[in-house]
Amino acid sequence: MTPDAADPTVSALTERELLAAILTRLGPGRALVGAGDDAAVLAAPGERIVASVDTLVEGPDFRLAWSSGFDLGWKSAAVNLADIAAMGASPTALLVALTLPPQTRLSFVLAIADGLRGACAALAPECAVEGGDLTVSRTLTVAVTALGTLAASAPVVRSGARAGDVLALCGDAGIAARGLAILFDRWADADGTARPTAGLDELDAAERHAVSRQLRPHPPIAAGVVAARSGATAMMDVSDGLALDASRLAAASGVTVDIDSALLGGDEFALAGGEDHALLAAFPPTAALPDGFRAIGAVVPAAEGPVRVDGVVFSGRGGWDPYRSEPAAG
Amino acid sequence: MTPDAADPTVSALTERELLAAILTRLGPGRALVGAGDDAAVLAAPGERIVASVDTLVEGPDFRLAWSSGFDLGWKSAAVNLADIAAMGASPTALLVALTLPPQTRLSFVLAIADGLRGACAALAPECAVEGGDLTVSRTLTVAVTALGTLAASAPVVRSGARAGDVLALCGDAGIAARGLAILFDRWADADGTARPTAGLDELDAAERHAVSRQLRPHPPIAAGVVAARSGATAMMDVSDGLALDASRLAAASGVTVDIDSALLGGDEFALAGGEDHALLAAFPPTAALPDGFRAIGAVVPAAEGPVRVDGVVFSGRGGWDPYRSEPAAG
Repeated sequence: MTPDAADPTVSALTERELLAAILTRLGPGRALVGAGDDAAVLAAPGERIVASVDTLVEGPDFRLAWSSGFDLGWKSAAVNLADIAAMGASPTALLVALTLPPQTRLSFVLAIADGLRGACAALAPECAVEGGDLTVSRTLTVAVTALGTLAASAPVVRSGARAGDVLALCGDAGIAARGLAILFDRWADADGTARPTAGLDELDAAERHAVSRQLRPHPPIAAGVVAARSGATAMMDVSDGLALDASRLAAASGVTVDIDSALLGGDEFALAGGEDHALLAAFPPTAALPDGFRAIGAVVPAAEGPVRVDGVVFSGRGGWDPYRSEPAAG
Repeated sequence: MTPDAADPTVSALTERELLAAILTRLGPGRALVGAGDDAAVLAAPGERIVASVDTLVEGPDFRLAWSSGFDLGWKSAAVNLADIAAMGASPTALLVALTLPPQTRLSFVLAIADGLRGACAALAPECAVEGGDLTVSRTLTVAVTALGTLAASAPVVRSGARAGDVLALCGDAGIAARGLAILFDRWADADGTARPTAGLDELDAAERHAVSRQLRPHPPIAAGVVAARSGATAMMDVSDGLALDASRLAAASGVTVDIDSALLGGDEFALAGGEDHALLAAFPPTAALPDGFRAIGAVVPAAEGPVRVDGVVFSGRGGWDPYRSEPAAG
């Protein structure tokens, strides 16, 4: 590794130096006690906190040939913000644990910080990185814990959908998966090994949009609280594909969901494509759907199969995510 | 890999099956909404939450030749519980993100769960694992987010020590480092590669105790809240060695700390040995030290060097942790 004073590897920095550089990029937080002590102290209005953790691992979850540091920071924030939103809560803080190979460049780590901050600014402006941890590892991982507040609302769980409810979706359906397919089609070897994209100039605007959404998903975070206030009976974010995640909501609620393909749109990835982190919710038939949500079907009494499409039991591929290692996903 | 129906690799299980097996080992939680939804909902009395994250990585932080799954789960809980205690708070919940190589045995993962539960039961009985994440990786890591409550107390930060305060310690000083030295002495090759211990029968009782404390540290979690109630002006847990961590407390507080080696005891590891996660605190001179804390020195006005031992500026090795990769630790 050639020494590079302007962009050293993390192995050339002390933890203190690396942390100080990262903190200058994260901007101010809102914690009562922030970075630099043993733990952060955060406000928890209403005496409840919503908490979730998700780790992105190089290899199964992202490839450095395709994802920049900014992309990685953005995505690791976005997927965790979506879990908070899916409870009907507002994200308030992220804790970020990075495990970094020694040869990782400082600029890459700072780009992760920029991506975390960028995603918070775009998707959840009340949320910031308030703590974290830096460790050396052979494998690059970003583990984000997201915390959020319910204020006065009840959490919206997966198990509350009732027959007669409207099934509704807010956010993209299949675009991230389309983007992934484009990446594999254009920038992967036959064995699936990713090749650097070197820009996306050869793509048309729709393709670039899809790849961008794969690398930097835009879950509709603010819609989570809105859905809760509008009476959503059940909600979850669509991470593994609409059909598969809808089957989970249906199973938790003891119902069947019937998706109307005409309402969903004809996109080939809409039913099975994951990683958009749209919000899937059920609303009482009398509720006005809040802005951003569109009806895509109905909740019906439990019947054969948890998910039906146009009245027919769905037997297609329920969810597919080639980033997930097949052996582990079963 | 030989198929083994009784103890399959995680690659032979679906995520759902693995999670279900883990949940049976964790026992009941106290969450308002627990595992199985997008996020956990936890009580946050007093409208504040204390939050910290720390990752243990195979290689820099632990070696499978020495640590069992139970040890690993225990230690990853204990080090995070100590961060909460060091704020004067009570741990209430852990979120645990595991990244597992595909060939990891189910029994090993369940032993991690047992260790997490065991540490909570022994050190912080009000705390349980309330959420987590499972991902495939080449590298085994355990990232734990600990959450805690301050109830009505103010957090005890590092920066509040004042000249005239008594410097006090609760917990082990140097025992974990002694244990690590024994492991390296007896069960490592010349290049530092760990060899399986195959039991510790050849050790005497004191040596076994030290190794046990290295693998399963016992930070005095309940003493954190007690110290806060007793008026501690500053506190932190000793993870990187007493002298180094005391220098951090001194720097944050704008003071110098003077350690009395006679009070500390003559153990060769007491000043520089890390990983005991004892609580180092400053108390006003008028305060009665709470049970478990022993005076080890005094806080004095800022002078040459942040740490003095018996009045002499400490210039020895301030902290040493061979588990941390030297390049990354600087």
